[in-house]
Amino acid sequence: MTTAAGRPALGAPLVERVLARYRERTLAELLRHIPEQSPPYLYDLAADYPTRPCKGLRAALCLATCAAFGGRPERALNPAVTVELFHNGFLVHDDIQDGSELRRGEPTLPARYGVEVALNVGNATNLLGLRRVMANRRALGGELAWRLFEETELMCRQSLEGQAMEIAWIRDNACGLTSADYYRMCLKKTSWYTFLYPCRSGLLVAEGAGTDAARLDRFGWYLGAAFQIQDDVLNLVGAAEEYGKEIAGDLWEGKRTLMLIQLLERATPAERARVVRHLSLTRSQRGPGAAEDVAWLLDRMTAYDCVAHAQEAAAGLVAAAAREIEAVLAGAPAAADGRSDGGEDAEEAAQAEEAAEARAFLLALPDFVVARGR
Amino acid sequence: MTTAAGRPALGAPLVERVLARYRERTLAELLRHIPEQSPPYLYDLAADYPTRPCKGLRAALCLATCAAFGGRPERALNPAVTVELFHNGFLVHDDIQDGSELRRGEPTLPARYGVEVALNVGNATNLLGLRRVMANRRALGGELAWRLFEETELMCRQSLEGQAMEIAWIRDNACGLTSADYYRMCLKKTSWYTFLYPCRSGLLVAEGAGTDAARLDRFGWYLGAAFQIQDDVLNLVGAAEEYGKEIAGDLWEGKRTLMLIQLLERATPAERARVVRHLSLTRSQRGPGAAEDVAWLLDRMTAYDCVAHAQEAAAGLVAAAAREIEAVLAGAPAAADGRSDGGEDAEEAAQAEEAAEARAFLLALPDFVVARGR
Repeated sequence: MTTAAGRPALGAPLVERVLARYRERTLAELLRHIPEQSPPYLYDLAADYPTRPCKGLRAALCLATCAAFGGRPERALNPAVTVELFHNGFLVHDDIQDGSELRRGEPTLPARYGVEVALNVGNATNLLGLRRVMANRRALGGELAWRLFEETELMCRQSLEGQAMEIAWIRDNACGLTSADYYRMCLKKTSWYTFLYPCRSGLLVAEGAGTDAARLDRFGWYLGAAFQIQDDVLNLVGAAEEYGKEIAGDLWEGKRTLMLIQLLERATPAERARVVRHLSLTRSQRGPGAAEDVAWLLDRMTAYDCVAHAQEAAAGLVAAAAREIEAVLAGAPAAADGRSDGGEDAEEAAQAEEAAEARAFLLALPDFVVARGR
Repeated sequence: MTTAAGRPALGAPLVERVLARYRERTLAELLRHIPEQSPPYLYDLAADYPTRPCKGLRAALCLATCAAFGGRPERALNPAVTVELFHNGFLVHDDIQDGSELRRGEPTLPARYGVEVALNVGNATNLLGLRRVMANRRALGGELAWRLFEETELMCRQSLEGQAMEIAWIRDNACGLTSADYYRMCLKKTSWYTFLYPCRSGLLVAEGAGTDAARLDRFGWYLGAAFQIQDDVLNLVGAAEEYGKEIAGDLWEGKRTLMLIQLLERATPAERARVVRHLSLTRSQRGPGAAEDVAWLLDRMTAYDCVAHAQEAAAGLVAAAAREIEAVLAGAPAAADGRSDGGEDAEEAAQAEEAAEARAFLLALPDFVVARGR
């Protein structure tokens, strides 16, 4: 595994170990709260996506942030489950909206059960997320629970608005977008729920409702943009079996990626006209020449170095994210949790060890994010 | 306008007057909280369904309950907007799931803008509802706000589970259902968010977080079942221009109504086999004989008095709801709101008048519900 800049990602084994451990804890807790009494095709299917193979990045980031800033990660388990549930709820709805066939290497829920069932399952998954927000009141107290409720509403709003921006661009066939538009959309659609919200939640649990929960925002924003660019790059060039999604699906959907925005900027007028024409048609409107068009788009993106340029941009963002997390961690005490129950030495030592590992995880995360194969 | 039992609905002018007044207040407040800064096809469209002609029954019930039990209805405006928003959010998602063409006499959002946009609009509408729940904290205090949050989560859960029951019945082609199954589904899918939740919210605002918010549950349950039966009847026999939806759409969708359950119980074996065969096919699987099948179903339902029987059941439920609301109101003081600001006589008199009218509204509602043309 190498980074976007070609360096080996030295922290990868550590990151993967921490991801795996936190994923196990989060998934067990998530499944524990799936209601057993239920009509079929509802909560049973809400457990489907979360149990498919995945990294559990968002939940791990929430738990690691809590640990790294002196909190006990167990206290952040509810928020970690919350973000994992909302993430999966969003995925189900995304798969309806995109008409996607595959998710994590298996048929999507709408492909397998139809839109009617899948829409409900997405809603049920989000509602289970909201129930974990309610559970914070008992576990963390009313003040902190309300702050986390506000953060959750804000996260949902940002994600929805970011997605709406992207949909409106495709619908209105926006062909004059700049990279600044793309980054603004990324902040809302991807960074917020994948990085900012888990970091904010983790900070709030570690430090209390009065803390400055926004001080990892820049870290999250940079990382989210790099993450989304990498995701878009993988969609174009990733190997099907490794990535688990339809290859070049974004070109079929007309998704406004950094590469597409670049291509529109760099192409000759004749080429640009062909791109705009391709984008003006919906998937079903395109004729038998559509596959050829998509192959041609991919070829032009390569010819104009759009993919390489996007990867460079991602590497720059990763470097900026790395500087951010270093600076924020340097300014934070590595002390043990003040809420510890009583001061047993072994427990304190274990917590200090987990905090140190969580800090190493956060520091290694930027390189890991763009080195990932999926 | 007559009731299901053929009696004139004496309270109809009063009910319509109160509905109109509360609808005006609720809609103004709802629109005031639609964000102006937004990507297109999101919040702008969240205002679409709510501004189409409709009664605003749920919001009015919330405000009237608050007033009837001694609260100032202004304090219940947030909860009233909340239920109206969730109702409309559910409608958008329902229209995607059912593939419906018309809603309140105009094309549905998915028909006009596609599934991708409509799904987001439904989510945005629900999220705006959740924001009003958050706003309760400032307007009503943390304790009551949290109770209303719990009620909102419970309402969403009941509605989702009720809808999932109905979907599973169609999907698994359930042909051995009883009327008890139907009533259980109604309680969850219809009664809860249309009647129980508005009544509970109104009671909580009027009487505080510690009150018994469940004492109008039976009223709401009976009324909701009557309301749903009436809705199903109108779908079969209502006039298209008055009702604003596709006529007999339920027979195309295979919806398990009380009439269909009755038909399956009463039909001859040969007829029953034909019904089951029709139900086993999805709308797209049915051949050119489908319209004939649907006409035949309608004919058989008439022949076996299924519609008349359902209307009788609705009338019985309405009578039971009327007895419930009379008993609960008889046990509640008609006193003015203890939270009144200071005791100006004119204000107190106006409030007492509104409380008396709200009580009359609640008492007249059962007859009105089944007399409605839409």
